[in-house]
Amino acid sequence: MKVKDQSYRPIWLDPDKSVKVIDQRLLPHEFVIETMHSLDDTIRVIRDMYVRGAPLIGVTAAYGVYLILKNKHGDPDYFKKECERLKAARPTAVNLAWAVDTMMATILAEPDPEKHCLIAEKMAGKIAEDEVNRCHQIGIHGAKLVAEIAKTKNNEPVNILTHCNAGWLACVEYGTATAPIYVAHDQGINVHVWVDETRPLNQGARLTAWELGKHGVAHSVIPDNTGGHLMQHGMVDLVIVGTDRTTFTGDVANKIGTYLKALAAHDNQIPFYVALPSSTFDWQIRDGIREIPIEKRDPDEVRFIQGRFQGLICSVLVPPEDSPCVNYAFDVTPSRLVTGLITERGICEASETAIRKMFPDQQT
Amino acid sequence: MKVKDQSYRPIWLDPDKSVKVIDQRLLPHEFVIETMHSLDDTIRVIRDMYVRGAPLIGVTAAYGVYLILKNKHGDPDYFKKECERLKAARPTAVNLAWAVDTMMATILAEPDPEKHCLIAEKMAGKIAEDEVNRCHQIGIHGAKLVAEIAKTKNNEPVNILTHCNAGWLACVEYGTATAPIYVAHDQGINVHVWVDETRPLNQGARLTAWELGKHGVAHSVIPDNTGGHLMQHGMVDLVIVGTDRTTFTGDVANKIGTYLKALAAHDNQIPFYVALPSSTFDWQIRDGIREIPIEKRDPDEVRFIQGRFQGLICSVLVPPEDSPCVNYAFDVTPSRLVTGLITERGICEASETAIRKMFPDQQT
Repeated sequence: MKVKDQSYRPIWLDPDKSVKVIDQRLLPHEFVIETMHSLDDTIRVIRDMYVRGAPLIGVTAAYGVYLILKNKHGDPDYFKKECERLKAARPTAVNLAWAVDTMMATILAEPDPEKHCLIAEKMAGKIAEDEVNRCHQIGIHGAKLVAEIAKTKNNEPVNILTHCNAGWLACVEYGTATAPIYVAHDQGINVHVWVDETRPLNQGARLTAWELGKHGVAHSVIPDNTGGHLMQHGMVDLVIVGTDRTTFTGDVANKIGTYLKALAAHDNQIPFYVALPSSTFDWQIRDGIREIPIEKRDPDEVRFIQGRFQGLICSVLVPPEDSPCVNYAFDVTPSRLVTGLITERGICEASETAIRKMFPDQQT
Repeated sequence: MKVKDQSYRPIWLDPDKSVKVIDQRLLPHEFVIETMHSLDDTIRVIRDMYVRGAPLIGVTAAYGVYLILKNKHGDPDYFKKECERLKAARPTAVNLAWAVDTMMATILAEPDPEKHCLIAEKMAGKIAEDEVNRCHQIGIHGAKLVAEIAKTKNNEPVNILTHCNAGWLACVEYGTATAPIYVAHDQGINVHVWVDETRPLNQGARLTAWELGKHGVAHSVIPDNTGGHLMQHGMVDLVIVGTDRTTFTGDVANKIGTYLKALAAHDNQIPFYVALPSSTFDWQIRDGIREIPIEKRDPDEVRFIQGRFQGLICSVLVPPEDSPCVNYAFDVTPSRLVTGLITERGICEASETAIRKMFPDQQT
């Protein structure tokens, strides 16, 4: 995607063999590039949310594995221990463990440790390209849904609500939830996006609005409280969200608050779709609400809100300073509230039968 | 309620016959008293939300009628025109029109205009005292619900979720939604309150948390997105909210986002109660979703978030400056999602039959 007339991805390997990421904590007000030289850098960048979004966390972790080997190779026990440390950086997005496990399996299959670093570099690049391709396919499949609705709208915009940021900043290109929006927009379909601001970290207001604006897509930022009212009054045609982990039974972990929008969509007979690459499926967990670990983060992310004041980025305290705050990062939407899953292979029901049928080769 | 060891109400008549209000826009970080001398002051204070909350808007409007007459009396046409201007200050809370109409009817029934100002002063005071009494009764009735749940909790806290501020700051004393909490707490029942921060203006994080803290009630501030997750995991026993207008059929207009919490409570079989004095019923409107006017406010209330930074109150810009924002202030929860209404006369179903039965004398 273009930023200041230059094409960017949220992560890339620099010619000097360090790894660069966009520091997403400062957007939309400052555009800063962060450099990762080591595993510790990678863990900090994931844990402190310089990068976020399930596919991008996966790609960043893959480059983290590369950085482990770049700095020290030839000691498999050390390598495995460092990989486990990386997997613990954040608990909810399944792509993190998936990417590290995939990297480890391929690397450790090569007996010559001198080749490990180059294998890791190439494989991290391939994981990134695979995510790009998957997101592009998600866009193509999902845009058909948008086009169908557009036929009924008599040139009025198709109103799509999304929560958090499942855009190119969360992936590598296109995004997951935004891919159908970008593809539909590029096809000339009139779309307007309701952007949930997505407290506490405001990834919707800060990142999704910024992305959509850069791409010229009409959008409006709304408080997370607003979607139900809009749906009651016919102002939402379609909901598309991303996911950090989806069980093989179709339960969807995503940014906290997603479940509330799914309930409202269901109550108003509005289609509620989840867009995901197959790397986000969890093939082990059957009951998402009981079993998916939900990250509890620093209460200060609720207590302080960051924004721009007099040209500087600062964080303001909102509640009384002695009031406790609680910060769960995700919730789980049960499959019964999900109209369908938009994957790189097409759209399927959020059910075990349909998911297994679409991905017979990936159920490990 | 006590602030800095002194008893306060959010509005009072000063000995110098001006009307004083707490400027709620600056809480919890600054405690500032605003003086109203005229109707224009009153309209500004209501419209710009120095005061808010349906009962308090009603009481403020009653004092606004008094201020019209204090500055000029003896011209009934002028008086009526000014009263209509006051009624237009905000559209959703029915208490505003109710208080002005009640004041007008009594005042205009007195043929001697020299007596109007004194009548208005006394009547505004009576409306305030009536709200206090109604809120106290709401507290007594609602506390029984809390006590019932407490019996099942084995000394663990009863977890009550509330949205926005329907506390004493929204009323005159006790509050509506908070009255059962304060009464139960004062009875020695172990309660803990989940306080929805309530974007965009954060009345939960700023006002409800502040009130509860001053009264020593255990509470946690959460983003509005969090309640569904808490309910899925058994962390909410009861929801109590206030309302700006409730139809005689039981549809509840309240701060935007209330409907989403009602859906989640319903989906998890958690009781969802609405606390209101009878002054908040609308006896004309049958279909709340179609007919209650929903105020659309300045998008800058979404775009900028106010808080404390380096000891000063300032507002930070969150989204990109060129992203449009949309700001609906209320939504309507259909009666089917409401477990019951807690009124000054007791608890009743949110149905026309039950409401008419409880208030046979007030259906005008």
